[in-house]
Amino acid sequence: MSETPPGTVREIRLTEVPSGLPGPEHLAVVEVPTPVPGAGEVLVRNRCFQVFPALRTLTAGGVPGAPFPPLRPGDTLFGPAVGEVVTAGDGASLRPGDLVSHFQGWREYAVVPDPEPLDGTLPDPAAHLAPGATAYAALTRIAGLRPGETVFVSGGAGGVGSLAGQIARLLGAARVIGSTGSAAKAERMTAELGYDAVVLRGDGPFGVRLAEAAPDGIDVVVDNVGGEQLRAAADAARPGARLVLVGTLATQLSAASTGATAPVELDTFRLILGNITLRGLTGVDAATTAEWRERFGAWLRSGSISFPHTRIPGIDRAPQALRELFDGRHVGTVVVEP
Amino acid sequence: MSETPPGTVREIRLTEVPSGLPGPEHLAVVEVPTPVPGAGEVLVRNRCFQVFPALRTLTAGGVPGAPFPPLRPGDTLFGPAVGEVVTAGDGASLRPGDLVSHFQGWREYAVVPDPEPLDGTLPDPAAHLAPGATAYAALTRIAGLRPGETVFVSGGAGGVGSLAGQIARLLGAARVIGSTGSAAKAERMTAELGYDAVVLRGDGPFGVRLAEAAPDGIDVVVDNVGGEQLRAAADAARPGARLVLVGTLATQLSAASTGATAPVELDTFRLILGNITLRGLTGVDAATTAEWRERFGAWLRSGSISFPHTRIPGIDRAPQALRELFDGRHVGTVVVEP
Repeated sequence: MSETPPGTVREIRLTEVPSGLPGPEHLAVVEVPTPVPGAGEVLVRNRCFQVFPALRTLTAGGVPGAPFPPLRPGDTLFGPAVGEVVTAGDGASLRPGDLVSHFQGWREYAVVPDPEPLDGTLPDPAAHLAPGATAYAALTRIAGLRPGETVFVSGGAGGVGSLAGQIARLLGAARVIGSTGSAAKAERMTAELGYDAVVLRGDGPFGVRLAEAAPDGIDVVVDNVGGEQLRAAADAARPGARLVLVGTLATQLSAASTGATAPVELDTFRLILGNITLRGLTGVDAATTAEWRERFGAWLRSGSISFPHTRIPGIDRAPQALRELFDGRHVGTVVVEP
Repeated sequence: MSETPPGTVREIRLTEVPSGLPGPEHLAVVEVPTPVPGAGEVLVRNRCFQVFPALRTLTAGGVPGAPFPPLRPGDTLFGPAVGEVVTAGDGASLRPGDLVSHFQGWREYAVVPDPEPLDGTLPDPAAHLAPGATAYAALTRIAGLRPGETVFVSGGAGGVGSLAGQIARLLGAARVIGSTGSAAKAERMTAELGYDAVVLRGDGPFGVRLAEAAPDGIDVVVDNVGGEQLRAAADAARPGARLVLVGTLATQLSAASTGATAPVELDTFRLILGNITLRGLTGVDAATTAEWRERFGAWLRSGSISFPHTRIPGIDRAPQALRELFDGRHVGTVVVEP
């Protein structure tokens, strides 16, 4: 079924470079003529897009080596999105009504060259916005999690963390410990997200609290935070532990930081004596992503996993949603339905 | 051929816990009755023993998790040694004249239960004191060095480093960069030890100098130093780089440090964006050690590698040799011939 797009559509643009955390005061909802697909392109009506944490650094000018280009004032924001093909240009292989995933979120309609069609592996199209491939690759390919091991997920209520805890449990972890910033989130983590224990940040010295939660030490870490929490995790690491670094929320969420570096002080003597591995992870290869989707779909259908997310309706609320992401207001992935 | 041991023999004991670097003022050469082997033991006349850097922390009280017990005042020092069986107790499988390697250096004669007989794999018995298995495991098993890559070895003139540079070259590294503390050692490193370039510490900001020596970045690091040099290596790491941590000379060789921790500040954001691995390494498994010895023996016989070491004759000079090790006076492994 084809539909006629409106004459104008809305999108979110950066109006000024934030000096701290980005939010509504740095963004504008603008109305633009509906774009027209060229040859091989399709016009997609976005059903939902992810409010993703990398926008902290992208709106601040980016960092060298980052996988995404920085945003300048006047640019339209971007990020993972799922939508429906409305019209197809000459030579496009997709047809109106096809569901696709692409990277042009933050707008009601997007013109995309050759987006990836959804193949029904995941029962809910929005689940394509789940950043679970990172959590899955960290626990399997990089850390090689073995049944019976103890896992610590810093930032355990976030987009990656809220899936990492559940995946660790499904892969046979004996004990899964998380960290987060509020008692309300901690409660949801133990009730719904597979965590055995949660350490609250700001509730006394983090290292002491983590050691209490993991008295026998930690084998595998999925670190979304860095800084003090990563240091504490390294101190609690058992011989042969694998620490996978996937995020730097400690500096990303701090208005005082530029977000472009994430310093941590580690004791290399401890790393040596414990044969401990730290490994940074960005980007997941296609084979692992496909494997993750197969398993995620099966787990979702059997009810063994949930896709924790918050749906925010209306593109005009997207700028506020970005601020709320950095304020740590939500559990799981933050999804806007424009 | 059997020989009669003397009635008394000399060994080196710790007399006081050093507040800084250990040396002659903390050690004594003492004369003791020649020990007598019991059942299953042999009396070994030590031909040579290694002056090894771990004595820095062992004489200072040790650190939790270390593979060796700490030394207390009154204890005889220990470490890798090679010697010849003089007399064998009842039931010992070795015979007088057999060459063995064991861990009771720092004495002229040692009683050892069941030492490992040398099998002739290495052409020079002293080469058993080479700490090359660590360098070999770091470059092969841990880093998976590929031909054409660029390697940085911090502390490149030390016992491990002086072999790591040569091994990296033999394994096909395109460029091998080292660091050291003096121009004289730097010259030997490029002339004899396979290094293309050497960065001197204390000669301006280390990171700037390392980046000049490795303008296209570094793929593999064997880090004997930690601290500023490790940080600089992480800054120069190319995407997918592997940094193997094997030593902490920056704090081990500093009289101001206790030697029990080796702090380094790293930027986890960089580690994530570059998919960079840091891995601590202590202890090498038996299979890798055996593989190393086979290759080391073959390389020594073909003249493709040297065993860089300094031989110091006389057990009475051993205390001063320990001080000289920490002063960085020598290239390669420091070996005492008691």
